[in-house]
Amino acid sequence: MIKTAVLTISDSCANGIRQDLSGQTIIDLLPDDKFQVCRKIVLPDDFQKITDELIRLSDRESIDIVFTTGGTGLGPRDVTPEATVSVSEKIVPGFGEIMRAEGLKKTPNAVLSRGTACLRKNTLIVNLPGSPKAVRESLEIILNVLPHALEMMHGGGH
Amino acid sequence: MIKTAVLTISDSCANGIRQDLSGQTIIDLLPDDKFQVCRKIVLPDDFQKITDELIRLSDRESIDIVFTTGGTGLGPRDVTPEATVSVSEKIVPGFGEIMRAEGLKKTPNAVLSRGTACLRKNTLIVNLPGSPKAVRESLEIILNVLPHALEMMHGGGH
Amino acid sequence: MIKTAVLTISDSCANGIRQDLSGQTIIDLLPDDKFQVCRKIVLPDDFQKITDELIRLSDRESIDIVFTTGGTGLGPRDVTPEATVSVSEKIVPGFGEIMRAEGLKKTPNAVLSRGTACLRKNTLIVNLPGSPKAVRESLEIILNVLPHALEMMHGGGH
Repeated sequence: MIKTAVLTISDSCANGIRQDLSGQTIIDLLPDDKFQVCRKIVLPDDFQKITDELIRLSDRESIDIVFTTGGTGLGPRDVTPEATVSVSEKIVPGFGEIMRAEGLKKTPNAVLSRGTACLRKNTLIVNLPGSPKAVRESLEIILNVLPHALEMMHGGGH
Repeated sequence: MIKTAVLTISDSCANGIRQDLSGQTIIDLLPDDKFQVCRKIVLPDDFQKITDELIRLSDRESIDIVFTTGGTGLGPRDVTPEATVSVSEKIVPGFGEIMRAEGLKKTPNAVLSRGTACLRKNTLIVNLPGSPKAVRESLEIILNVLPHALEMMHGGGH
Repeated sequence: MIKTAVLTISDSCANGIRQDLSGQTIIDLLPDDKFQVCRKIVLPDDFQKITDELIRLSDRESIDIVFTTGGTGLGPRDVTPEATVSVSEKIVPGFGEIMRAEGLKKTPNAVLSRGTACLRKNTLIVNLPGSPKAVRESLEIILNVLPHALEMMHGGGH
């Protein structure tokens, strides 16, 4: 089983103004014979809180995959990619590229999504967009390669 | 109205050997009911002069969008992407990706274009290629999402 | 003639457990009327050894193009992109993007390839994937633009 954490990054979800539909969308989409969602967390768009949580999930909880949702746009509070890069040991540029390229087939605004992905220790961190619809479309694109990604991270898959 | 600056980066334009057709192409393409071109500047391929100007346009003149043209290739003097990244607060990778991907449908040399885009304060800086033809093709690809990009930058668009 | 070096990065090739088929694939694919393979090197997945070799090939041997193969995946020993970025003077993002985008048409796992490309002095360094099949597919995608890339690097091509 792939130990998974879902990290919703949204001021309005964190202060209770809005329900966290995007985090729940991720959980609903993950096949439960492969992914075990160990942690579901909601944080405001705060660089320090995001990096602290990513480090904790990687270094202390040994989570295999962290999915973030939210904070990848051009808004003044959007800092999820910067927080992700700041804890990264190795950037994995393909996830962001493919999500934008496939997203463009649905909406030209996909070009504005700044999400990335990285490795930190044995943890893969993937930034998904913020809206439930965009989360669903993006996760469906990358879902099938995640087991192979984990296999490679653990030294196999060659 | 979107406060716009056009920054042509070219040694030969800066010293008067060549006419700045690419900067003028940008101005011609921008719909004048949405974009107000406040500044049109020509600089040589000089890292320090480019970064000084980008900082000034962002921090002092509060320009909404700066379009650069030129200096994105593999030549020894081409430093526009490096200058852009050095003043960046947030990288916006999608613009460069889509301009290369769409450009490849016209010429394989599009892969060599190194342009990027970034946010600095309330300013979006977008690197366009150097030739008038490539400028036209690239700007047409991204033009329609720019109003939405500005809306997001000002805290809206959700 | 384009002075070329082929750098295979693989623990198992370096210690003799596996034959270096990927490096040989690169050599076989390069048209020998344009590319002169001056150096063929095998190194383990060791950050310091890779960066030392890349610096030497660029700064002392004035190689025009270095092709690396291997070390671009998600494995704990895969550090080729990090070594490449660490010696880079200018990143050339299009090569990695197009190899992943084209690779995806053959296998979804192409999204996991982390290869990049960069300039250091007068040397273009391009990360190719590790398997002979993926090397062949990736090199075929970019081969035709390399002479123009070299021309630009030497101040021409405008």
